[in-house]
Amino acid sequence: MLVVQKYGGTSVGTLERIESVASRVAKARDEGKDLVIVVSAMSGETNKLIEYAHYFSSNPSKREMDMLLSSGERVTAALLAIALNEMGHSAIALTGRQAGITTDNTHTYARIETIETSRLKTEINNGNIVIVAGFQGINKNGEVTTLGRGGSDLSAVALAGALNADACEIYSDVDGIYTTDPRIEPKAKKLDVISYEEMLELSSLGAKVLQNRSVELAKKMGVKIVAKSSFSDNDGTVITELDKQGDNMEEVLVSGVALDRNQARVSLRGVTDRPGIAAEIFSKLANENINVDMIIQNASENKTTNLGFTVPQNEIEDAKKVINSFDHDIESADYDESVVKVSIVGVGMKSHSGVAATAFSALAKSGINIEMISTSEIKVSMIIDEKYGELAVRVLHEVYGLDK
Amino acid sequence: MLVVQKYGGTSVGTLERIESVASRVAKARDEGKDLVIVVSAMSGETNKLIEYAHYFSSNPSKREMDMLLSSGERVTAALLAIALNEMGHSAIALTGRQAGITTDNTHTYARIETIETSRLKTEINNGNIVIVAGFQGINKNGEVTTLGRGGSDLSAVALAGALNADACEIYSDVDGIYTTDPRIEPKAKKLDVISYEEMLELSSLGAKVLQNRSVELAKKMGVKIVAKSSFSDNDGTVITELDKQGDNMEEVLVSGVALDRNQARVSLRGVTDRPGIAAEIFSKLANENINVDMIIQNASENKTTNLGFTVPQNEIEDAKKVINSFDHDIESADYDESVVKVSIVGVGMKSHSGVAATAFSALAKSGINIEMISTSEIKVSMIIDEKYGELAVRVLHEVYGLDK
Repeated sequence: MLVVQKYGGTSVGTLERIESVASRVAKARDEGKDLVIVVSAMSGETNKLIEYAHYFSSNPSKREMDMLLSSGERVTAALLAIALNEMGHSAIALTGRQAGITTDNTHTYARIETIETSRLKTEINNGNIVIVAGFQGINKNGEVTTLGRGGSDLSAVALAGALNADACEIYSDVDGIYTTDPRIEPKAKKLDVISYEEMLELSSLGAKVLQNRSVELAKKMGVKIVAKSSFSDNDGTVITELDKQGDNMEEVLVSGVALDRNQARVSLRGVTDRPGIAAEIFSKLANENINVDMIIQNASENKTTNLGFTVPQNEIEDAKKVINSFDHDIESADYDESVVKVSIVGVGMKSHSGVAATAFSALAKSGINIEMISTSEIKVSMIIDEKYGELAVRVLHEVYGLDK
Repeated sequence: MLVVQKYGGTSVGTLERIESVASRVAKARDEGKDLVIVVSAMSGETNKLIEYAHYFSSNPSKREMDMLLSSGERVTAALLAIALNEMGHSAIALTGRQAGITTDNTHTYARIETIETSRLKTEINNGNIVIVAGFQGINKNGEVTTLGRGGSDLSAVALAGALNADACEIYSDVDGIYTTDPRIEPKAKKLDVISYEEMLELSSLGAKVLQNRSVELAKKMGVKIVAKSSFSDNDGTVITELDKQGDNMEEVLVSGVALDRNQARVSLRGVTDRPGIAAEIFSKLANENINVDMIIQNASENKTTNLGFTVPQNEIEDAKKVINSFDHDIESADYDESVVKVSIVGVGMKSHSGVAATAFSALAKSGINIEMISTSEIKVSMIIDEKYGELAVRVLHEVYGLDK
């Protein structure tokens, strides 16, 4: 049985923590598992190095940043190998290059292209626990590249896929995926299992647990992820392919409720209703790297239309500039930063009507006005006044029976 | 004009220091020089990583240590490249691997075997200042190796040799090689020039300035070294091939006086005078990794002989154990840790008799007893009571006119 385990920054944040991870790895080894361990930099290290770089430049070369940032994971990998050796287990630390990870040329945000597994397989066959420095690879020219924030998750999933591992265990300081944020709703329950699609939609909940790109890659490669805590022995949550239309889960409609506080609403009134105007506005927003989330357009009346969308709060000023440049085409614009997005997510709602209606009526009963609505096959998102955000989460959590 | 510059740990010990090094490099660039810059880890970093490793193991795997320790130089290299870019100079940081440095397989103390210069030459031809992470390379199997303490000096000299550079400037916090330690003799003078051989013999003086292996390599490859301070604009000392029997330096007999406090004397009396006994003793000392420095054997009398040698002070206990194992062959052993070695060094003394005699008589006049003497072509070393160490340095410094 081959298992890939990944330990994030807080799991290896101190020497004591690395020792504790070593014990955990040794235990899995004693159970007879073949192991590939992916590690992040000790928590704080990457931020320290970024600060160092920013001392010299507000816009450092991305190639040099990769050279700089790839050092932290190597330190953790070597230390973990040393700790395991001392416990009597043969272990070897490999850089991204030595682990055969080749990426494209996009420095600081590279994509893994291939994993040449021969060295990894040789080390495993030689009885070694293989420790891989996460977050990094090299491109075809031998340049060091990194995979972006949370990239060690990606390293782990890609290695698990390439090695056809039985599971990819992602360890953090959270013991799995919850039906909602337990700080908001203490009745939140840890999920035993969740589908890739739901996990992706719950990203605002799961951001701390799992990086989205890794979930996408796991789905693509069919890698079963187990999200676990390195601070406990709890079971964690399995993230896998799941068809909730199957018998055993027929009654589960909604898996979780997510709250996203980082939203600002833009409402445009009296937009000239000529072909291509919406495309022009959103192209220009995209060119300015503004991430538009929800978009609502109402039916037009009197040759004008109303258009609403949301952006992250720290991009609202940039969005205003773009909107102001359309002053010939827009009658008035209204901006509201005191909104939040509350979402319900569940594969089960695909085949059941009325799931959205249940949400709308539950919020209405609690006197919560819904400003914008957007739905997908497995998600319903609603923009509401921020002061009702936590209440809405609790109301929705209860109405779908997630605390049961 | 191609110059290799190497900046040691204290020269890049803080972000401010790295900025200052960047300015220095930029200035040399503005003078039209092609530049390859070799950097050490920020001071303290390597020791910190060694401490980390020793938290887990008193005897960590050397391969893993190399993975661990090679990270510090990469950080400095990337930061220096970022700083230079910000100043408007194109610069690129390369790892030992990317700089083409291939070593043997001796982890933590590898020897450079070849330098494949094509990447370096391409970067130089493209107008880049090339920053190389010192102290490291890879072996033929792609494993990361390091060159031992002070290994960045070695990287710099090897690169200068391979690239046929016009000079190799080694920057530290000392502005050159002095006739003796200025803390002992304030009249000590900085030397403008010194031969490789003298530099090697003065290693106990120059240890902080230049690593011995680098001087040996420079001599072998004909690389002219300039030892300079990164904290001043002083000229520094040139270390090069020098024949002091030539006209211009005929009168210079002695270049410097060195004091080595890390000496312990072992005196063996009544050693059985049979063939091979000395070889047996010194082989066994070598097997225990005890570094024997001076060895004196007196002519034998009455089938026994007296044997004296010195070892580093921290190896005296190990030496005692070895000597005790010869109790059938040795009448008595005497150990003295309160001794120092004072040496005069100079290529000029090769062709001049009486240089040693001058030293002996000068020390005698000051009432300093010489316990052991050892001479080579360019060095006379004397073991004396440690309480006279500094006095001896001043007496010898004066008698050879080094303060003139």
